[in-house]
Amino acid sequence: MQIDAQQTRTIWPAQDGSGDVEILDQTRLPHRIEVVRLRTLDDAVRAIADMQVRGAPLIGVTAAYGVCLALREDASDQALAQAQAQLLAARPTAVNLAWALKEMATTVQDHPAGARAAIAYARAAEMADEDVAACEAIGDHGLEVIRAYAERKRGGRVNVLTHCNAGWLATVDWGTALAPIYKAHRAGLDIHVWVDETRPRNQGASLTAFELGQEGVPHTLIADNTGGHLMQHGLVDLVIVGSDRTTRTGDVCNKIGTYLKALAAKDNQVGFYAALPASTLDWTLTDGVTQIPIEQRSAHEVTHITGRTASGEIATVEIAAPGSPAANYAFDVTPARLVTGIITERGVAPASEAGLFGLYPERAVEAVMSDEVAT
Amino acid sequence: MQIDAQQTRTIWPAQDGSGDVEILDQTRLPHRIEVVRLRTLDDAVRAIADMQVRGAPLIGVTAAYGVCLALREDASDQALAQAQAQLLAARPTAVNLAWALKEMATTVQDHPAGARAAIAYARAAEMADEDVAACEAIGDHGLEVIRAYAERKRGGRVNVLTHCNAGWLATVDWGTALAPIYKAHRAGLDIHVWVDETRPRNQGASLTAFELGQEGVPHTLIADNTGGHLMQHGLVDLVIVGSDRTTRTGDVCNKIGTYLKALAAKDNQVGFYAALPASTLDWTLTDGVTQIPIEQRSAHEVTHITGRTASGEIATVEIAAPGSPAANYAFDVTPARLVTGIITERGVAPASEAGLFGLYPERAVEAVMSDEVAT
Repeated sequence: MQIDAQQTRTIWPAQDGSGDVEILDQTRLPHRIEVVRLRTLDDAVRAIADMQVRGAPLIGVTAAYGVCLALREDASDQALAQAQAQLLAARPTAVNLAWALKEMATTVQDHPAGARAAIAYARAAEMADEDVAACEAIGDHGLEVIRAYAERKRGGRVNVLTHCNAGWLATVDWGTALAPIYKAHRAGLDIHVWVDETRPRNQGASLTAFELGQEGVPHTLIADNTGGHLMQHGLVDLVIVGSDRTTRTGDVCNKIGTYLKALAAKDNQVGFYAALPASTLDWTLTDGVTQIPIEQRSAHEVTHITGRTASGEIATVEIAAPGSPAANYAFDVTPARLVTGIITERGVAPASEAGLFGLYPERAVEAVMSDEVAT
Repeated sequence: MQIDAQQTRTIWPAQDGSGDVEILDQTRLPHRIEVVRLRTLDDAVRAIADMQVRGAPLIGVTAAYGVCLALREDASDQALAQAQAQLLAARPTAVNLAWALKEMATTVQDHPAGARAAIAYARAAEMADEDVAACEAIGDHGLEVIRAYAERKRGGRVNVLTHCNAGWLATVDWGTALAPIYKAHRAGLDIHVWVDETRPRNQGASLTAFELGQEGVPHTLIADNTGGHLMQHGLVDLVIVGSDRTTRTGDVCNKIGTYLKALAAKDNQVGFYAALPASTLDWTLTDGVTQIPIEQRSAHEVTHITGRTASGEIATVEIAAPGSPAANYAFDVTPARLVTGIITERGVAPASEAGLFGLYPERAVEAVMSDEVAT
C-alpha cells in the first residue's frame, strides 16, 4: 500500500545487500515516517517487544528475519534454539510468532551451519511474499462479503467498523481486516470505515486512520466507547477485525475491546467477521477464553499518551490522576458464538470446528492428534 | 468528600457575600486544583457547556445558581425566560438541567421582581443540600447491594467496575455511582474499583481515579476496552454507573460506552446497576434509544488529549492521524433489559415501569397524563 503515494511494505531486506533488515517504525506513526534498521537478533526482539512492528502476521515475518540475523552471526543449533527462545518471549499472544519460528527451524535444521543463513534469508523472503499473497486473497474473499452488504443496500454506502489495526501495517502488505476494505474501495463500492481509536496504544487513531487516509478511503475516527451506540442506530453494517490467535473452534483472540464490539454486533444483528491468514489459526486449542494467554503490558501505556504538540513536536503527557495504579490487558477473546464468519485466504467459513476444517481439511488429523497428546 | 484531606463541595456561594458562585474547575483536574468564580449568567452557561462542571446532578444545581446570577441583574419575567433558554441549551442530554430550571421558575414566578433573586438563592442552596442528601441516601441503599455481594463472597474483596465519573464531582457531594462505594469503604468492606478511563474526555482517569485516590479507596485504572475481558475472567462482581437521563421504563442514558459494559455484564452474569436521584428520571419517556437526544461534541475531544508533561506543565497533543475526521457522541442508552437494578434515594428498584412506579407511586398519574398529552 501507499505512504505519500509511494508503494511500500512494512519490512524488507536492506537494499545495500548487507543482510540487515529494515522496518517502518510504527511507534512513530502517524507523527513521523521513520525507517529503522535491524542488524542483530536483539534488534529484532526489541522491535517486536516494543511494538515498532506489531500485528500478528508482521510479528511472524519479523521473527523469521530475526532468525536470519541470528544465524548470520552464529548458525549453530544452540544459537538457533537461543534465537527461537528469545523471539518467542517477545510477545506471548500471537500464534504466528510460534508458527514462523517453527517454520524457520524446520527449514534450516537439516542443513549444515555454513548454508543455514542463506537458506533462512530465502525462506523469510518467501514467507513475506506468502503473507502478501494470503492477505490479498483475504481481501478478495472479504470483498464478496462486503459486496453482499452493498447489494442488500442497493448500492448505498456500506459502513464497516474496525478495531485496532489489522491493516497493511499489521502485515507485510494489504492487511487482514482492511484488505477487503481496500479491495472494495478499488472496486468502486461506496464504503466508509468507523475506526476505533483502540486505547491504550491507539493503533486505530495512529495506524488505521493513517492507512485509510493515505489510500483515500472515507473513514471517521471514534472513541472505543462509540460502536454500540452506532449499531443501535443502524450506522454500522458489519464489523471486520483481525486476530492474533484463533482456536479451531472459532474463538477469536484480538486486541482488547474486540469482545465488547462483538457483543454489540450480536445485540443489533450486525455482521461480525474476523479476517486472518491460516498462520493465525491455532489447531491445538478449543477454548479461547481459558486457553489463550493474554499479554499484560506496562501500566505506562494507560497512564501516558504520546502525540504531536501544536508546534509539531512529539510529546508524552500523563493523563491519569497522580498515583493511581493502572492495568493493561492487551487482548481479549471473542467466543465463536458471536462471530458471523471467519475470512481467510481460502474463503469464508462459519466460526466453528466444522467450518474451519471445511476450509482446511488437512488440519483435521493434526488437530485430533493434538487432543490425543493432551489427554 | 475530600481533596488534600480538606472537606469540599463542587459548588458553593462565594464566602464574601457577593452573591457570586464558586466551582471547582473540573477541566483542570487532576492536574490542577482551581476554583473558578461565576459572576454572570453567561459564566454559568459557559461553565456547563465547557464542562467545568459536569455530571447530571451538578449541572442541575449549577443551572439553578445560573438563574440566581441572572435574576440579581434583571429579575423580570423576560430575563427569567432568557436565562432558562440559555441554560437549557448548554447541554442537551441531562434531564436534571430541565428539571432544575423548571423548579427555579416555579419557585420565583409568583413573587415580585424585587424579591426573586433572594428567593432564588435560597432555593438553589436548598437544591444543593437536597442533592447531597439524595446522594447520601443512594449511598446507603447501594451499600446494601454491595454488602450482599460481600456476604456472597464471605467477606472476600468486592470488585466494582464504574464508567465515567458519577462521583462526588458529578454532584454537589457524595456522588451517585460512587456514593455506595464510599459508604462501603467507610463501613470497612474490602472493596476495589475498576475505573474505566472513559474516552474521549477521560473523566474516569482524571476525576474518578482522583476522587478515589483522595478518599483512599483501592482502585485500578483501565482502558475502556478492558471490562469485558475482566468479566469473562470473574474479576468484576458488579458494575455501578450513574445516569444523565433514565426513562420511566428503566432505559439508562449515560456516558458513551456504558451500553457496551452492560452487554458484557449480561453475558457474564455480572450485576449492572445505575445509581441516580429522582431528578434524573424522565417520567415522560418510555423508549430511551429513540427518545433521548444524544449530544454530539467537538471532534477535537477525540483527536486531542490534555495531560501533564514530565516537567509538570499542562500540554495538549494531537493523537490522531493528520487529516482524519472524527465523531464524538457523548452518551448512549442501555436498554432496561440489561439493567439489574436502579438505585435511587428511595431504594433499589427493578429497571421497569412497575419497579420505578413502586418507588415513586406519586409519579404514575403524571406519567399517564404525559402519554395522553403526547397521543
